Amino acid sequence: MDVGKLVKDFSGELARYELNLSVDCVIFTILDQRLKVLINKPLPKLSWVLPGNFMHKNEEANNAAIRVLKQRTGVKNVYLNQFGIFSDPDRFSFQKLFSMVRETSTETISVSMLPERVVSIGFFSLVNHDSINVTGGDLQEETCWADIQLLPALMFDHKRIIEEAVKALRKEVYFKPITHKLLPEKFTMPELQQLYEIILDKPLDRSSFQKKMLKWNIYERLEERREGVAHKRPYLYRFDQNKFSEGLRQGIRFGL
Amino acid sequence: MDVGKLVKDFSGELARYELNLSVDCVIFTILDQRLKVLINKPLPKLSWVLPGNFMHKNEEANNAAIRVLKQRTGVKNVYLNQFGIFSDPDRFSFQKLFSMVRETSTETISVSMLPERVVSIGFFSLVNHDSINVTGGDLQEETCWADIQLLPALMFDHKRIIEEAVKALRKEVYFKPITHKLLPEKFTMPELQQLYEIILDKPLDRSSFQKKMLKWNIYERLEERREGVAHKRPYLYRFDQNKFSEGLRQGIRFGL
Repeated sequence: MDVGKLVKDFSGELARYELNLSVDCVIFTILDQRLKVLINKPLPKLSWVLPGNFMHKNEEANNAAIRVLKQRTGVKNVYLNQFGIFSDPDRFSFQKLFSMVRETSTETISVSMLPERVVSIGFFSLVNHDSINVTGGDLQEETCWADIQLLPALMFDHKRIIEEAVKALRKEVYFKPITHKLLPEKFTMPELQQLYEIILDKPLDRSSFQKKMLKWNIYERLEERREGVAHKRPYLYRFDQNKFSEGLRQGIRFGL
Repeated sequence: MDVGKLVKDFSGELARYELNLSVDCVIFTILDQRLKVLINKPLPKLSWVLPGNFMHKNEEANNAAIRVLKQRTGVKNVYLNQFGIFSDPDRFSFQKLFSMVRETSTETISVSMLPERVVSIGFFSLVNHDSINVTGGDLQEETCWADIQLLPALMFDHKRIIEEAVKALRKEVYFKPITHKLLPEKFTMPELQQLYEIILDKPLDRSSFQKKMLKWNIYERLEERREGVAHKRPYLYRFDQNKFSEGLRQGIRFGL
């Protein structure tokens, strides 16, 4: 816990920030067969929040999101999708935030020069949790993967931001083959289907799912089969980057 | 042309605006078998722009878009979808705008207190041009429907905003039945298909298109047929609001 650093973030370095604009990152993964989201707690006294911070004055929003995600969680090299903006005038107030921080700090912060509200830009990503490195942030926050259906109390409108991000993710998996990245290099169609079912939160028909996936022509069926599954030995598949690039070039149309 | 009013917009009433945040509206329709977008020209000396303006300080972005669209074009009662934010630090500059306006005005405007950049929030809508009333805006702008493939010179990054809005519209028609609103109450499947083909800018297979549309179970086939089409008398259909509401309640899944 480094209260001084947090306070400095909001006082000494104010001039660097576009103080009425922030970014919030919703990082999804699947863990224990559940859709989960990365949240952190900047200070023990505060509730959980999404990794977020103010934009810099001369910064493009996407770059701000990449910078802030790294700053708050240590996570790098993640493709972030901008999915919504959150502009309710009452969603955030410096007054409220500082009243919570002040209990843990003796420093005083003036809010008179601060904007009345903050508009936040939401980004999401779906990641393989094995391939990213959550090292923690500059404030030594506590970080965890929270089940989207069992979220703890979140500050501000962050629960709503997550809900909107879930909707955006569910649309995204219809249009972009991003789900297989959560699996090992070789996977079976039932394994892929299970991820879609977790993300979409509903069962899918087995044969029409496979038909649709194979129609994309980006998953190569291998000679190998998954062993050890009782009575069944499903084929293994592998994502074929060349076919995917060729498909993109030809204007392949995804869609579940 | 009311230069004084434009200047006042940027000087006398500055305090009302969140000056580093704007909204831009991309209003699509289909006219003469082409996808078109509503643009306007605030002053003869300026190029074409999207209907847009700054947010008010205590205003939610969606409400700002509704207000600004009405202010700039007279168009009311349109459902606006937020689809992207445009935050390149160099996309807009007050300096640049005022240098253009100043040629047509003797008033001087100070830019020293203005933000260095403006982030714009993009909204789009697909409308039946017969059902909206483009009365013109508060600046008595010139307004027109421009073919998205034959756009005139546009100010700032408005061409890019339109390009991104087209992508968002193409996704939207996969997820929401919004296209039939561009047709009269009774329409044929070939007429509906033609609109999808114009929006998606590609031919669609006739039988699989009809199959998908009818699977939604929101279009009621009437006993009447379209007369006057050589050798063919296609059935007429009508959007069924009750079936649509019931489908939404049951979690209907659209998708082309």
